[in-house]
Amino acid sequence: MAKPSLPPGTRDFSAEVVRKRNYLLNTIRSVFECYGFGPLETPAMEQLDTLMGKYGEEGDKLIFKILNNGLDNPDKEKQTRVALEQVLHGKNSKDLTERALRYDLTIPFARYVATWHQQLPLPFKRYQMQPVWRADRPQKGRYREFYQCDVDVVGSRSLLNELELGCICHTIFSQLQLPDYSLRINHRQLLVALAAQCGIEDQLTIITTAIDKLDKIGLEKVKEELAQKNVSGASIELITSYLQIEGPLATQLDQLRSLLGKQPQAITALEEIEQLIESLQEQEVRAVLDPTLARGLNYYTGTIFEIKAPPRVTMGSIGGGGRYDDLTGLFGVPGLPGVGLSFGVDRIYDVLEELQLFPPDSTQGTKVLFFNLGTAEMKTAFSQLQGLRAKGMAAELYPEPVKFDKQFKYAEKKNIPYIAIIGKEEMEQQKVNVKNIRSGEQRTLSWNDLQTISLNW
Amino acid sequence: MAKPSLPPGTRDFSAEVVRKRNYLLNTIRSVFECYGFGPLETPAMEQLDTLMGKYGEEGDKLIFKILNNGLDNPDKEKQTRVALEQVLHGKNSKDLTERALRYDLTIPFARYVATWHQQLPLPFKRYQMQPVWRADRPQKGRYREFYQCDVDVVGSRSLLNELELGCICHTIFSQLQLPDYSLRINHRQLLVALAAQCGIEDQLTIITTAIDKLDKIGLEKVKEELAQKNVSGASIELITSYLQIEGPLATQLDQLRSLLGKQPQAITALEEIEQLIESLQEQEVRAVLDPTLARGLNYYTGTIFEIKAPPRVTMGSIGGGGRYDDLTGLFGVPGLPGVGLSFGVDRIYDVLEELQLFPPDSTQGTKVLFFNLGTAEMKTAFSQLQGLRAKGMAAELYPEPVKFDKQFKYAEKKNIPYIAIIGKEEMEQQKVNVKNIRSGEQRTLSWNDLQTISLNW
Repeated sequence: MAKPSLPPGTRDFSAEVVRKRNYLLNTIRSVFECYGFGPLETPAMEQLDTLMGKYGEEGDKLIFKILNNGLDNPDKEKQTRVALEQVLHGKNSKDLTERALRYDLTIPFARYVATWHQQLPLPFKRYQMQPVWRADRPQKGRYREFYQCDVDVVGSRSLLNELELGCICHTIFSQLQLPDYSLRINHRQLLVALAAQCGIEDQLTIITTAIDKLDKIGLEKVKEELAQKNVSGASIELITSYLQIEGPLATQLDQLRSLLGKQPQAITALEEIEQLIESLQEQEVRAVLDPTLARGLNYYTGTIFEIKAPPRVTMGSIGGGGRYDDLTGLFGVPGLPGVGLSFGVDRIYDVLEELQLFPPDSTQGTKVLFFNLGTAEMKTAFSQLQGLRAKGMAAELYPEPVKFDKQFKYAEKKNIPYIAIIGKEEMEQQKVNVKNIRSGEQRTLSWNDLQTISLNW
Repeated sequence: MAKPSLPPGTRDFSAEVVRKRNYLLNTIRSVFECYGFGPLETPAMEQLDTLMGKYGEEGDKLIFKILNNGLDNPDKEKQTRVALEQVLHGKNSKDLTERALRYDLTIPFARYVATWHQQLPLPFKRYQMQPVWRADRPQKGRYREFYQCDVDVVGSRSLLNELELGCICHTIFSQLQLPDYSLRINHRQLLVALAAQCGIEDQLTIITTAIDKLDKIGLEKVKEELAQKNVSGASIELITSYLQIEGPLATQLDQLRSLLGKQPQAITALEEIEQLIESLQEQEVRAVLDPTLARGLNYYTGTIFEIKAPPRVTMGSIGGGGRYDDLTGLFGVPGLPGVGLSFGVDRIYDVLEELQLFPPDSTQGTKVLFFNLGTAEMKTAFSQLQGLRAKGMAAELYPEPVKFDKQFKYAEKKNIPYIAIIGKEEMEQQKVNVKNIRSGEQRTLSWNDLQTISLNW
């Protein structure tokens, strides 16, 4: 029989990886909780209607749809035939598929809030850490099942929310030993003002799409793209000046005011940015104004964020987010503004791995393995073992009295740091031989010492 | 626009429920870890081939299949048409669906072990806590997405594994304040011996299926069912004597030996049971021999377990498991025996809920809400707030200076026990008014006291 395989783009996660990922998720979770956010978990499946049309035409194609059960019911043959015919023309039919796997955490969150907004405490502060599924072509670093980790507050326009999201970011990366992250901030209304100043207010997307590529293709190519889209020479010059704004915050703000100060949106946006970044810096958050930050999504209407990995790794963005005016309008509940941040947990995991920042005890499983030397010895070892477990130490007894070599290899494979041996002699003397596998150091302890002294030598 | 709905049989989990479930899962996880088991996580999707044919004909129908993407590709029209035609005849075709959602955790585990057995430390001890999906008709207490929680050790025939699983069960339910659970134990080979003694060794399933219903339909109906299946009167009498065996362990064993002692399987099985239950009782595990325990699955070959909820709730089974000879034979890797236990986390959750056994701090979110009284007051409150958060306390500041009533209702809705108020006067005196919402007790603290004294009055 052929060995079973996994679907392309999916992965098994071994004990070591799950433990490391739990360390990462638990760190993030505890900071979210500290800031008053509560967990939400939504089902893997949503109604197909809920998801379709929310992610653009390309997105729709990448949604995994679930086949209805009972399609072979003879009473339904006609409907099924019609449904099948529709599939050939790229259409989904309720007679074939009514459900799909969630594609992100934002739409399920919006669906939840739209359903329950009258019962929820407002502002509603939730975080959500769950896998999502996308039928993207699998490639290095891109999977069909991956975790997302979102934190949002809806129902409040206060800038305090932005300030707290920045503080959350800072606390998380400090706890993860990545204090040299950076939080880049811009404001969607500055880009709107820039378009207005160029006289192409109705073509904001041309500007944001081009600027979004700056990091990848460079300034000259951005200018070429704008020219191809019929943006005037004078406007391109203005956009170039905008993109070249640098220096400390006060200088950046001065230049932006002289460039865009005639646009009313710019005035408010600059006030908000100034207040926010100054407050963040008072809290020691590494926040900087980055006018070149655009973030493609049209969804955002106010502050926009991007979290960058430390320059010592080549990773780039490890998170982002922003303020939006209308989370739930798509589901018939208008007027609920909010702001959120999404952490790229897979990328942060890779950064921690590359910089070897997972604490050793985050991956520690069993701490000590008792060797099995036969029926009587095993009984003694078991009672010592249960004593250690009762105090919370992860410990094991090899289940069969096989050769030492085999038991030793088991300890090595499982990365168990200590082995404990109780033979005939040790039983008589009420002692135990304990060996640190890595250092080779060996100690003979009384049973009492074993139960009371911690294994950290 | 119509309010969006959830697929039938699926649920959203609010903060309170997620926190309680995490308390339950974390308790179970820490015991598994203590016994040297490591976590495994497998993807939600498996190849359809991996799952089909493993759960019987009924099971196959309840597997959620995922539609392939790109069915409207004109180059593939012919294959797609053939595939669609097959659906009408109840067949799955790779051109329509190649993947499915996992139906349980056992088959993905077997697939994992079959793939990696040469690299894994053997015995391999893993636990897995993940949702599974079944297209069952939704009804009260039965969902299409629910958690399973399995712990297994494969690659060892030692009875020590059974003993440790019993200890795990005991430790978990003691920690959950359910010390009056019971662990019922039987041995598949006793049932084999019973069939042999009746002279219908090849019809074991008739006996196990009938016995499995004893709790539900009573002894008389079981006898009727056996008679309908052409079991002889003498055999039915023998089975009745078997089912009526009661009393303390020694009495039960004596009766079983006199009833089945001529069958070689029974002799070994009774020795194992005696040794196991005595060892378990030495460890204070509430283990009892229950000859009426059959467990439907043909999969089991040795010890079988069932965990029963305390008699003070009407819940019945909250877990079970047993020993099997061959986990991975289905995937071309024979000869890997094992033993496992599955905890019914949804049912255990319901028991803890009914008996109000979730500790109050397992659901505690935000502990204190600072009221927002305006720009200057807010700044002061924010700095006090950040001090508390830095010490790990979950705390919030209401983001807008709205009416007290609205801020108070927010605290009530979120079940926040303390509110803190810093107005003009408190700012001048460097004080804060703190109120316990439930008791109504109010205290005026210095800022220093707020930061150093814990809120537990």
